[in-house]
Amino acid sequence: MKKIINQPDDFVDEVIDALLIAHPGWIKAATADRRALVRADAPKAGHVGIVTGGGSGHMPGFLGYVGEGLCSGVAVGNVFSSPSAEQIFEATKAVNGGAGVLYVYGNYGGDVFNFDLAADLAEPEGIDIKTVLLTDDVASAPAERASERRGVAGMAFVFKCTGAAAERGDSLDEVARICAKANDHCRTMGVGLSPTILPAAGKPTFTLPDGEMEIGIGIHGEPGTHRGKLESADAIADRLMGQILGDLQAPKGARLAVLINGLGATPLEELYLLFRRAAKVIGDHGLSIARSYVGEYVTSLEMAGASITVMLLDDELETLLAAPARSPLYRDWLLV
Amino acid sequence: MKKIINQPDDFVDEVIDALLIAHPGWIKAATADRRALVRADAPKAGHVGIVTGGGSGHMPGFLGYVGEGLCSGVAVGNVFSSPSAEQIFEATKAVNGGAGVLYVYGNYGGDVFNFDLAADLAEPEGIDIKTVLLTDDVASAPAERASERRGVAGMAFVFKCTGAAAERGDSLDEVARICAKANDHCRTMGVGLSPTILPAAGKPTFTLPDGEMEIGIGIHGEPGTHRGKLESADAIADRLMGQILGDLQAPKGARLAVLINGLGATPLEELYLLFRRAAKVIGDHGLSIARSYVGEYVTSLEMAGASITVMLLDDELETLLAAPARSPLYRDWLLV
Repeated sequence: MKKIINQPDDFVDEVIDALLIAHPGWIKAATADRRALVRADAPKAGHVGIVTGGGSGHMPGFLGYVGEGLCSGVAVGNVFSSPSAEQIFEATKAVNGGAGVLYVYGNYGGDVFNFDLAADLAEPEGIDIKTVLLTDDVASAPAERASERRGVAGMAFVFKCTGAAAERGDSLDEVARICAKANDHCRTMGVGLSPTILPAAGKPTFTLPDGEMEIGIGIHGEPGTHRGKLESADAIADRLMGQILGDLQAPKGARLAVLINGLGATPLEELYLLFRRAAKVIGDHGLSIARSYVGEYVTSLEMAGASITVMLLDDELETLLAAPARSPLYRDWLLV
Repeated sequence: MKKIINQPDDFVDEVIDALLIAHPGWIKAATADRRALVRADAPKAGHVGIVTGGGSGHMPGFLGYVGEGLCSGVAVGNVFSSPSAEQIFEATKAVNGGAGVLYVYGNYGGDVFNFDLAADLAEPEGIDIKTVLLTDDVASAPAERASERRGVAGMAFVFKCTGAAAERGDSLDEVARICAKANDHCRTMGVGLSPTILPAAGKPTFTLPDGEMEIGIGIHGEPGTHRGKLESADAIADRLMGQILGDLQAPKGARLAVLINGLGATPLEELYLLFRRAAKVIGDHGLSIARSYVGEYVTSLEMAGASITVMLLDDELETLLAAPARSPLYRDWLLV
């Protein structure tokens, strides 16, 4: 094990403690256990609140997307475990500015269960709740069952567009419409090169021999669609882009946003190699890149690997993607 | 080997190719081989140019610090190898706006040799050159031989302050003074948990058994000052901060900037755990944190590990650290 940690059971609470010390002007705790964190300026009267959440171990995933023009609050579970309904409910109340609250989170059983329970708690309090599930992982179910797919790095684009809509004062119906559209326009597929070790368990969540890769792996190590000998960066990008573009069916001439996401242990240099080939494939398909993002956006602790997300843009989504956003952990660069 | 690469010999050139595709509005190549990259708006007439450079494999190190309020140009060597004098000279000419050029780079033999040669080429062309060596790694030589120390993650702070001085139009003497002062005010110390594998060699640069750590390790795997069983995050932070603060001798009440830097494979969560303990130690010493940075700033390919950098601030350095800066790979968040 190669982890810089203290007691494994304290891992999540200590990370939250550190975030609150490092970034006091950005987030505040909405509960005594500090597992519900919200924007320092929450609630924003008259604005839709956006609550996300999920297991820990994905930073900057979830926690890093609470900020201006992004989500309003987050409920923080243990490593790879859903937050509780109570924590989600507390985040909901803390971001409720009277215009309703949107829940947007990855399509995982535990999260769905707890967010639905939280909605049941919120509605008697007069808080309008709408829910959008993130389902961008093309490897996790075929196109005809796209609603069953898991949510992965596409959340960076979805949070960005949805947060921009809420920031400008759109209604709950409108924010939810944009969120669902942004999710529908995203496709992601990943590759894993090494397993993840949970701090409390101290051993790998799955095995993957050195020199092998798993195409289509999930951000908790869920099995992918192909396991085999590690291939070149170009061959991996070709595999991922083939699936993504085949599923997305973007019309010729379309503008795309592209995100190359590192899963934790993969150097930035290698992410750029994947970007390079993805850009070539996109050009060969008669498509163009309007915005490029390369870095770590949603990780899986120290997993070696990466994912590629492609978002099909239209004027509405491109405007929202380009709107200002700011949190200590979110990078947003206007490129190309 | 768990690398997402193509032909190892093409690694650096393909990364540069990707950067130029992803960020065309930010950098441009100054040479046909594209190993000298400069700001898209270079040269800036009447402004001091700042040229850095070094081996590849440290991203966002070097390449990521070319931008507004940062460096003007970079010469890019092979992995962990110095760029050539010719590449440095080409970067120098491309950023020369008539006010002189500052060389600022890590204190490594190959880099010193080639930058000095480049200065010899530039001076007959009428370009004033000054040089500041980065020497922030406290583990690499004792305090009485501080000028022999290596340069590591302190470069993020030094580039930031120096770039801000050049951006506002300071003279070459003044930019060089600020650069040397910023370097003198920085102390860094690192810990490694796993070796790095060079793409071309395909095997580890050194051995470090699983479950061990090397305190004081350099960003190319240079030996540190202590090797032993992996300790807790708090114990590691105590070791690093003890050396750093002992060497820095900051006066009671001083304001500090703190940077927790990931070496490549260490999750952001773990970097925050180090930050948490560093903040505690700083408070216990009667010092305070004015600015916090947590993330990857200078890496060593896929090495697991981290470093802590502390910069002693005064009004001048704090103002420069807070000035606007922008490149696709540099994060600058105003915190606390």
